[in-house]
Amino acid sequence: MTTTTVSTTTATAISPFLKAITQQIRANDPYGTYRNWSDELLLKPYVLSKAQKREISVEGDVDPITKGRVLAFYRAIAHCIEAETGLLCQVVIDLSHEGFGWALVFSGRLLVVSKTLRDAQRFGFDSLEKLEAEGAKIIASGINLAERFPEVGRL
Amino acid sequence: MTTTTVSTTTATAISPFLKAITQQIRANDPYGTYRNWSDELLLKPYVLSKAQKREISVEGDVDPITKGRVLAFYRAIAHCIEAETGLLCQVVIDLSHEGFGWALVFSGRLLVVSKTLRDAQRFGFDSLEKLEAEGAKIIASGINLAERFPEVGRL
Repeated sequence: MTTTTVSTTTATAISPFLKAITQQIRANDPYGTYRNWSDELLLKPYVLSKAQKREISVEGDVDPITKGRVLAFYRAIAHCIEAETGLLCQVVIDLSHEGFGWALVFSGRLLVVSKTLRDAQRFGFDSLEKLEAEGAKIIASGINLAERFPEVGRL
Repeated sequence: MTTTTVSTTTATAISPFLKAITQQIRANDPYGTYRNWSDELLLKPYVLSKAQKREISVEGDVDPITKGRVLAFYRAIAHCIEAETGLLCQVVIDLSHEGFGWALVFSGRLLVVSKTLRDAQRFGFDSLEKLEAEGAKIIASGINLAERFPEVGRL
C-alpha cells in the first residue's frame, strides 16, 4: 500500500477519537512493530481516495489487516462511548459474505451502534477530518441512545 | 461423527422450535443433500453425550459444519421470537477465538438474545428434549424483553 498520498496530517492536532484508534492499534501489536511509528503514520491507512478505493477488489473475503482496521475504528468508538456514559461496551464485527456484514457495539441489551457494512474491503475515508467527523457522529448517536435507554444498557 | 447413539427420537413429536431448526437447515441446502432426510435425522448432530463432547478437540477454530449448526439454532430462535412479537430479528454469530464468541439476536436496537459462546466446537445437547428446553427458555426470555422494551426493538 502506498502511504505517500497524505501529507497534510502532520499539521493536524490529534483528536481524542483518533488517539483512541491509535491506542487500539498499539494494543494489538504483540511484536512491537508500531513502537516507533507516529500516530499519523498509524492512521494513514484509514485515508483512501476514491481512486485508491476503486483499485481495491471487492471480490472475495476481507483481508485480516483491513478487518483489523474496521475493528480498531469501532473499538475506538466503543471506548469513547464508555468514557462518556460509564457503560461497558462490547464490539462485534461480523463480515460474513465478501465484505458485507455488521458492526455492532452493545452494552447490556442495548445496541448503541448498529451499522451494516458494505464493500468493507474498501473501508476508508477521504481525509483524517472525515474519519474524525464520522467517528464523532457515531459516538454522539451512541451516547444519545445510551442516555435515552439507560435501563436497557445496564441489563 | 457417529450418529447411532440416539434411538428414542422417532417417538418424539417435533415441537415448533425443533421444526424451525430443520427449516433453517433445509433453507441452507442448495444441492438438496437433505431432501430425503427426516427431521429426526437432521436434528441428530445436535445431540451429543458428555463422552462424545470430550472426544471433540477445542483446539483451533470451529469447523464450518458446527458453525452452521450454531447458526441454525439461533436463527430458529429468532424465527420463533419474530413469530410471537412481530419484530424482524437479525442473527450474528461471532466466533473469534478458538470456539469463544457471541451469539446475538437483535431487532432495532434491542438485543433480544445475547449469549457468550464457549467451546463452540462441542455445541450440542444431552437429548432432543434438552435442546427443545434450552431453545424454549431463550425464546421466552427474548419475547419477555421485546415486550418490556418495544420502543427499542422498533428503533
